[in-house]
Amino acid sequence: MTKPRIGIIPGDPGGIGPELIAKLLADPKHAQAADILLIGDAHLFMQGMKQAGTEYVMRDCAFEDNQPTSDWTVGDGIAHYNTQTIAEDEVEIATVSLANGTSALSNLNIALELARDGVIDAITFGPFNKAALIEAGLGHEDELHYMAEFLGVEHYISELNTLDGIWTSRVSSHIALKDVPAYIDQHRITEAVHLIDTTLRRSGLKRPRLSVAALNPHAGDNGNFGREEIDVIAPTVEALQHEQVNVDGPWPSDTVFLKAKAGEVDGIITMYHDQGQIALKLMGFDRGVTVQGGIPFPVTTPAHGTAFDISGQGKADVKAMTAAFDIACNMVSNWQ
Amino acid sequence: MTKPRIGIIPGDPGGIGPELIAKLLADPKHAQAADILLIGDAHLFMQGMKQAGTEYVMRDCAFEDNQPTSDWTVGDGIAHYNTQTIAEDEVEIATVSLANGTSALSNLNIALELARDGVIDAITFGPFNKAALIEAGLGHEDELHYMAEFLGVEHYISELNTLDGIWTSRVSSHIALKDVPAYIDQHRITEAVHLIDTTLRRSGLKRPRLSVAALNPHAGDNGNFGREEIDVIAPTVEALQHEQVNVDGPWPSDTVFLKAKAGEVDGIITMYHDQGQIALKLMGFDRGVTVQGGIPFPVTTPAHGTAFDISGQGKADVKAMTAAFDIACNMVSNWQ
Repeated sequence: MTKPRIGIIPGDPGGIGPELIAKLLADPKHAQAADILLIGDAHLFMQGMKQAGTEYVMRDCAFEDNQPTSDWTVGDGIAHYNTQTIAEDEVEIATVSLANGTSALSNLNIALELARDGVIDAITFGPFNKAALIEAGLGHEDELHYMAEFLGVEHYISELNTLDGIWTSRVSSHIALKDVPAYIDQHRITEAVHLIDTTLRRSGLKRPRLSVAALNPHAGDNGNFGREEIDVIAPTVEALQHEQVNVDGPWPSDTVFLKAKAGEVDGIITMYHDQGQIALKLMGFDRGVTVQGGIPFPVTTPAHGTAFDISGQGKADVKAMTAAFDIACNMVSNWQ
Repeated sequence: MTKPRIGIIPGDPGGIGPELIAKLLADPKHAQAADILLIGDAHLFMQGMKQAGTEYVMRDCAFEDNQPTSDWTVGDGIAHYNTQTIAEDEVEIATVSLANGTSALSNLNIALELARDGVIDAITFGPFNKAALIEAGLGHEDELHYMAEFLGVEHYISELNTLDGIWTSRVSSHIALKDVPAYIDQHRITEAVHLIDTTLRRSGLKRPRLSVAALNPHAGDNGNFGREEIDVIAPTVEALQHEQVNVDGPWPSDTVFLKAKAGEVDGIITMYHDQGQIALKLMGFDRGVTVQGGIPFPVTTPAHGTAFDISGQGKADVKAMTAAFDIACNMVSNWQ
């Protein structure tokens, strides 16, 4: 069996991404599980090793026009494509800066090209700083929408979050709560269910068990406080069941996560941002992973951010980064 | 110091309330911590002992027109006011019935009268079944609104939920999500903050640390998705700070509970039902307690329901009932 080929980029140079990569690679089992290609400026990876107090050996690989001139998977040490996106003395730790944002975006662009062209199978990235990306010219709602445009993806996309085997997708995301009820419709719920179903199959589950959350308290209490469950959500779930999707609901949102915690559900489709995020963050903020759903190859990252309050101090917890890497490997093996 | 005088009623006869009372009283420290008056039909308490497999000694006290004819706190065993609300053979375990609902409501009425008249200081009740209460004639949104009308309370009332020292109150409750944004106003937020502040002082905290949750994801992201934080919530919090209330916010609702979990906050004011309920249920459904906020004496109950799936089987977990009893005792001692 061939190993998954995972491209890893540092994310924001001023955040904890470089340190997390050093900590990830300090455990040799990760380099054994995959062919890893580090994509980014050499000094950023060295900076991460210094911050983490750990070391690994990089093997420089030759690239021309973002194409390797020989098989990059052959040889000792961790393969490295040495990009030049930021000068060493321009890196500002724990700071939002144009230079940091430009570096993060440039390395992302290269990684996306390499994945699109089949040089790597998947991407795991260190945390981005959204404000720095915006300074560097990101004009999109988030990095997922940026990636989709970069790759010409026109179908439905959505961030998926996962923690300890529990996955969530959401029908609405960064919109005002007052706009949520009108936004919830059969089409959008169906797309969110299909996306998490596909993504979970790609992560290795044969028949993912999915549950849809309700919109209203007590799932509307039979229409007493809200009719969206009766008029929209329940009929959509029924239609999906007729398509043989293994989905049920709508469930009151304060009990559906108890089902997941008890191991009875693999994926939960939430109606709005905080419904899922309250639960996932409480269950283990430090281990959560974000998967960019709808992109034509696996792209994963820790759910946490750049953590400027501790960046450069060697204190970053590698659990989420490790989970992001493991999920990328797993998705490559199961991608259909 | 005089002991708090706690009235305990079984709640729904078909639920786990009687069993929970038997388990609570199996630990003699509870009868030492308070003067307990059991209010309800003798056979219900006997039923609970049989279900729980534990025993305690009841001491029948004489009452006339719901007034004790002598000091009920004097004597051995657990004081008992033997009401007659349901015949023994009418009790249907794990069933919604008119007889069960009538019994629960009748014992509640007596307990409310006794507390109103100063015969007891507080009430702890076993779980009610809402459908049975409605069959028995409850025409109110919930038991809290029933109690408020019974006692002639006209000021602001709200259910408070608590778990492991974390308290929540909410600005809106059983209304459709689409109606929440318009419902959130300065007056209602202020009342919710004052109520939890008062209740927490009454539970023994000198200066409760309170945080207000935002309505929109990312607290509206500076107005990008929702303006209620800027226009309504933040100005209300500022006004409360000027009144010397120890409150801050609005905080994104997916992080405010992490603050509470880390011990940095005592009470959280949520904008809608599921915001708090998702978090509290995940943090420990089986230990949560509901306090009827705004009633002129402490009234507490487990946050869980009648648990018809396990009632009569001796499997009920007494943790929440114990916490409800402890909180009632604590609130009596600190009531001002």
